[in-house]
Amino acid sequence: MISTHPVPDTVALNDAKDRIEIIDQTLLPGRTEILFLETAEEIYDAIKRLRVRGAPAIGVTAAFALYLLMKKSGAADHAGFAEELDRQAAYLNASRPTAVNLSWALQRMKRCAQTALEAETPTGKAKNNTDGFSRLRTHVLEAMLREATAIRDEDINACRSIGEYGLSLIHDGDGILTHCNAGRLATVRYGTATAPIYRGHEKGLHLHVYCDETRPLLQGARLTALELSEAGIETTLLCDNMSSALMKAGKIREIFVGCDRVAANGDTANKIGTSAVAILAKHYHIPFYVCAPLTTLDPGTPDGSKIVIEERDATEVTDLWYKNRMAPDNEHFTVYNPAFDVTDHKLITAIVTPVGILRAPYEESISAALSRH
Amino acid sequence: MISTHPVPDTVALNDAKDRIEIIDQTLLPGRTEILFLETAEEIYDAIKRLRVRGAPAIGVTAAFALYLLMKKSGAADHAGFAEELDRQAAYLNASRPTAVNLSWALQRMKRCAQTALEAETPTGKAKNNTDGFSRLRTHVLEAMLREATAIRDEDINACRSIGEYGLSLIHDGDGILTHCNAGRLATVRYGTATAPIYRGHEKGLHLHVYCDETRPLLQGARLTALELSEAGIETTLLCDNMSSALMKAGKIREIFVGCDRVAANGDTANKIGTSAVAILAKHYHIPFYVCAPLTTLDPGTPDGSKIVIEERDATEVTDLWYKNRMAPDNEHFTVYNPAFDVTDHKLITAIVTPVGILRAPYEESISAALSRH
Repeated sequence: MISTHPVPDTVALNDAKDRIEIIDQTLLPGRTEILFLETAEEIYDAIKRLRVRGAPAIGVTAAFALYLLMKKSGAADHAGFAEELDRQAAYLNASRPTAVNLSWALQRMKRCAQTALEAETPTGKAKNNTDGFSRLRTHVLEAMLREATAIRDEDINACRSIGEYGLSLIHDGDGILTHCNAGRLATVRYGTATAPIYRGHEKGLHLHVYCDETRPLLQGARLTALELSEAGIETTLLCDNMSSALMKAGKIREIFVGCDRVAANGDTANKIGTSAVAILAKHYHIPFYVCAPLTTLDPGTPDGSKIVIEERDATEVTDLWYKNRMAPDNEHFTVYNPAFDVTDHKLITAIVTPVGILRAPYEESISAALSRH
Repeated sequence: MISTHPVPDTVALNDAKDRIEIIDQTLLPGRTEILFLETAEEIYDAIKRLRVRGAPAIGVTAAFALYLLMKKSGAADHAGFAEELDRQAAYLNASRPTAVNLSWALQRMKRCAQTALEAETPTGKAKNNTDGFSRLRTHVLEAMLREATAIRDEDINACRSIGEYGLSLIHDGDGILTHCNAGRLATVRYGTATAPIYRGHEKGLHLHVYCDETRPLLQGARLTALELSEAGIETTLLCDNMSSALMKAGKIREIFVGCDRVAANGDTANKIGTSAVAILAKHYHIPFYVCAPLTTLDPGTPDGSKIVIEERDATEVTDLWYKNRMAPDNEHFTVYNPAFDVTDHKLITAIVTPVGILRAPYEESISAALSRH
């Protein structure tokens, strides 16, 4: 547990009150509100509308959801229970069709329930016996609760381990850049790219995290900058196009990002803009680290060229979210906002002027251009 | 003249009606409205509130303004005229203190007026002679009008020449990336970075221009994408963090950007994000061209480290402009909006996983990590 973090888990099951409790991420950064999800429709809507987002967090939500919905099921026999299990899983799975973790978690929960159902009915006799089904139902639900809890705990432990290993790469006083939100809000706790940072903060290191705002949906501004600064970590927001100036200014010691999928050769798919950050990091000789739970490693994909990239709606770029402030507002939060930066002459192929096209060496060509004028 | 462009000059003097006519850029991209500026206060306000912006356009506005205000002056003698000239120039100069072109144009206009005043009064006799002053006044105003018109024409000609030279670097069918607005809206006509594009379009080349939106103030989305698409040029808007994916996809043949100042060694100051575009261009082996009027070449600055960078207000990043659409909406306008991109494994220093830190070669280290699990 990270004791300094004041916010609750991103996703939690309240088994006593028969509900899932999530942080409603559509209200961030303005308000941190816990939303109670009790019905299939409420859960479906929460996933669809990104009230809960981030692959691990969606998976855990779906796992808890399938347990909870079956717990509330009125199915009176084995066949009815199995049918409702299929139906509810299919319904939840449709809430965000491209989310791999969603279908993965639902499949795992279904397999667990089916195994428990079959294991208890070797002769098939209990199926139509009400008393027998009641005992079976209890057994299946216990198995499902264990499985959902295991999915959650695996996420927490994976993030915690990433944090430990990542911490060995961090030094006291470091400036660290991150892109998008691979933070605790995308998981249950700790996050992936943020885990080494939270761990370092907990150990008393003084870290300063720079967050790319991450257009078009601004997850860096709305989520990462929020969760880190609320945890008491010094946090600076920048526009995506400012990271080159920031690296050149010597502010960044290392870079941590998350990932959506890592191909066999290490090619990594992650939020738009990640490859630009990596190219800049190489240019400025800054280490660039990808934080990846095992579920994101995909040896079945040989390299990045085989990863299909989703194109999203144009209005995400052309119409901005809302008129309110798009970033946190607290004592740990600042903004880096230079109006210009300097492009090294070695990067410029030519300078086109009214008296000709100038090429390197520029001392000579610019001087010559001016003397000709 | 670019006949296909439907919009008027960014700045124009209407001498017959005693007013300056500008495109009110604060209403773009929603509405293209011509604003009439008649008083010193209206001109000051238009520059201060960025109704007219872009170094060349501001310079031309100031030149026309000083002529117009002196034309309207009620000064009855040489001394009164000279005093009012100083006062009006100082007033206009305060509208945007950091704009170098503003003070440059006002100084040039003042020198012109002072020379004309003195040249006509070698003995000082005309100074206190009403009839003499009337003739002198006419002479000075004629000189000022010539000078202001020359400043405007020099801008137009400089841009036209940049267009011609730049055109030799462009091929039919090219995809071209640009950053911020170094377009006609920053000058009187043609623009700098856009001049080769307008020239190519006029000659019948089929070009496709990709515009970085250019956070935080979105000049690329609001201005460049507007002016190019309204001129009938195929235009695609992207967020600043998407240009790496776009270059990798092979969409960009060359890059044109403007500049604010070029140091003696060729180091170039330009809108934030320009250096990132240049680094990406180098990585993807794409030519990167800087378009620079002579006024931006600064041999007095040895290199980029001597250029002072303006830091602007945090609210520009945290509070977005308004709730309306932030980009044009017409048949030539599309958006490039992939949700992710792929980072080449050669760019990744390490992958941190729950079972250890993976390093290249990733085929081996990922496989080993999975077999250990």
